[in-house]
Amino acid sequence: MTTDKTVNSEIAKNVDERLKALSSIGSDPTGGMTRLLYTDSWLQAQKYVKQQMESFGMTTQFDEVGNLFGRIEGTDLPDETIMSGSHIDTVVNGGKLDGQFGVVASLTAAQYLLEKYGQPRRALEVISMAEEEGSRFPMAFWGSKNFVGVANDDEVKDIADAEGNKFVDEMHRQGFDFKPKQTRRDDIKAFVEEHIEQGDILEHEHEQIGIVNNIAGQRRYNITLKGEANHAGTTPLSYRHDAVYGMSKIISKALDRAHEIGDPLVLTFGKVAVKPNTVNVVPGEVLFTMDCRHTDAEFLVNFTQELEEMMKATAKEQGLGIDIDLWMDEAPVPLNDEIVATIEKEAKAEGYKYRIMHSGAGHDSQVIAPFYPTAMIFVPSIDGISHNPAEDTPFEDLVTGVQLLADTLYQLAYK
Amino acid sequence: MTTDKTVNSEIAKNVDERLKALSSIGSDPTGGMTRLLYTDSWLQAQKYVKQQMESFGMTTQFDEVGNLFGRIEGTDLPDETIMSGSHIDTVVNGGKLDGQFGVVASLTAAQYLLEKYGQPRRALEVISMAEEEGSRFPMAFWGSKNFVGVANDDEVKDIADAEGNKFVDEMHRQGFDFKPKQTRRDDIKAFVEEHIEQGDILEHEHEQIGIVNNIAGQRRYNITLKGEANHAGTTPLSYRHDAVYGMSKIISKALDRAHEIGDPLVLTFGKVAVKPNTVNVVPGEVLFTMDCRHTDAEFLVNFTQELEEMMKATAKEQGLGIDIDLWMDEAPVPLNDEIVATIEKEAKAEGYKYRIMHSGAGHDSQVIAPFYPTAMIFVPSIDGISHNPAEDTPFEDLVTGVQLLADTLYQLAYK
Repeated sequence: MTTDKTVNSEIAKNVDERLKALSSIGSDPTGGMTRLLYTDSWLQAQKYVKQQMESFGMTTQFDEVGNLFGRIEGTDLPDETIMSGSHIDTVVNGGKLDGQFGVVASLTAAQYLLEKYGQPRRALEVISMAEEEGSRFPMAFWGSKNFVGVANDDEVKDIADAEGNKFVDEMHRQGFDFKPKQTRRDDIKAFVEEHIEQGDILEHEHEQIGIVNNIAGQRRYNITLKGEANHAGTTPLSYRHDAVYGMSKIISKALDRAHEIGDPLVLTFGKVAVKPNTVNVVPGEVLFTMDCRHTDAEFLVNFTQELEEMMKATAKEQGLGIDIDLWMDEAPVPLNDEIVATIEKEAKAEGYKYRIMHSGAGHDSQVIAPFYPTAMIFVPSIDGISHNPAEDTPFEDLVTGVQLLADTLYQLAYK
Repeated sequence: MTTDKTVNSEIAKNVDERLKALSSIGSDPTGGMTRLLYTDSWLQAQKYVKQQMESFGMTTQFDEVGNLFGRIEGTDLPDETIMSGSHIDTVVNGGKLDGQFGVVASLTAAQYLLEKYGQPRRALEVISMAEEEGSRFPMAFWGSKNFVGVANDDEVKDIADAEGNKFVDEMHRQGFDFKPKQTRRDDIKAFVEEHIEQGDILEHEHEQIGIVNNIAGQRRYNITLKGEANHAGTTPLSYRHDAVYGMSKIISKALDRAHEIGDPLVLTFGKVAVKPNTVNVVPGEVLFTMDCRHTDAEFLVNFTQELEEMMKATAKEQGLGIDIDLWMDEAPVPLNDEIVATIEKEAKAEGYKYRIMHSGAGHDSQVIAPFYPTAMIFVPSIDGISHNPAEDTPFEDLVTGVQLLADTLYQLAYK
């Protein structure tokens, strides 16, 4: 498939207009975006997407919970659906690309294909998912989980947002409700999600496209070391049970080991809280977090178990008590090799600079991939910034991303 | 000099009564003591001490700022004065021994000597110093600094307590004022201060007495490491500038080295503040404190300089910026060998379990020692607890401490 400048300029115009229109819905005074599930601006954004879908001939439908679908029927294989999309919600004071760029990309690619090639052999659908970020209520992936029939209604029945608004009341207020039963469609043959990278590998390596073959698993821990708070002047070193000393040994050993191993392993000790946290008192207690991610499920479990053993041994050597709490344990999600190969073939044909990579951040695709063949396309993030009003991508990279998505959907739906 | 049970029981009775009486002045509802400079309870305590001094024949006098002196004239060498005492103020919610036990010990030892041996050859004085803790106003050692003529009036002229009460107003309210000129007496031939250890070495080693030959110097630092905050999932390890990783390497290297060296070196990293301090963000910045103490001035400077070099090199290796701020630099204060030897001889003669040791905490003696021959006697602190309502010492150890102080003052003032 070849591209021409005319085509690109048409895609560019649509991407630009649609991003601008969506970014005005829920924009906040600081220059960022706040569009949380079941708020008025959220519904307004879904209605804008619905109207855009209908503008070029898609039939549209909301499901019970508020996921929006736009569909073009297939000619030869009407029972097979190729789907593309992302989520419409944002974090608090987020940027103008996370989520909504994927929706705009799918919409714009579908319009381009329909206008250029007419009706596809397989049905082509765009999904604008209700919620992914977990930024209003204490739960996440509400959209994708309902789409694939794995949402647990009991988990949200009693939850409320920070202002005390109940999830259920807000859902009803906007005209939505629980699905009567969690069901899953059997017509979806492929799902492709386009998203910003939220990291700076593509920028760093001067690449336009990331083709995502895996979403890293992650394990998160709270680790508490318990020693003894003592006077910093009158307590000899040999008497001490210094929690910060123990923490320092653990973190430096763990990160030394992680750096030896390298990609795709990442390991972060992001939060530290010391007690009593005073210049002249030997620290009696410290709580710190550990966030470990890898694309291989077995490696992730084995490596974190190795770290747990090291932490226990180090605490013992230092005469410290230790409490290790694994509070998040998500396995890596491999994506579909065939779709990855299709995307790569198209990227190569166009001469794009691309890489096959994993995603270190979570996405709707990780919920969908266990049920339907799934892959993702990344476009670069300037300085790797995301979840922030400064979130941005060079405009030509956005257009390239949409073009590649269109080429991929052409292969999947038209061939 | 020999002791007999009668004598000890008389000392015991006086120590018990005087500590109880003083502990009722400024006691707070939590069971602790709060008696801050120039408050009403502070003046009440000084007046109680004055009345106790006079009760057995001392002549008493306040200096301009509120230090209280009780004096027994000498027979043969009236121009030579042997002095003993400590401070009358407490920290907020402190214990019943820090400071006031030293005042009670000096008072009780002087009464014992006068009643047993009559007038001394040299004058014998007890001082109840106005302020040591720095707990009400942002300055400390107001009593001892005025006593030795090194107080800087300009430093306190504009300061106020947390409620906004001005230092000068409060001083005037209680009938005190600045010294017209900072002067220093030339009659003081020895100063001996008795104090609780505020650590747990004596308890740990099953000893009754610490004879203090040095007050450790201390250097305190704020250290800031500046890296780059990044997404914990999407930023490869090799791209990171992780401030907590750098801090962990620095703290573990520094404490490993300090443990190799051992006593009397102590090294504490008491306070840690991470930015942004979130589980899934690579730490972009960390501020931590370092408190280093040693009895040898040259060692303290050389060792902390070695650490500064190591910190800079480690920061450089890790691609981090570093800011090292030395904000407290107090040299060690050696105490007087001859007085230490006199105390040791008396302790040995009585068969006390004792050790020659340094003080890791600060005391009035460090202000006085540069001008007059000075030493200290420590009694054990249960569990090393101090600056806390739980601060305590076995009563028999308090009595032993007072007896040893009396024996020492006998050698200094009567021989």
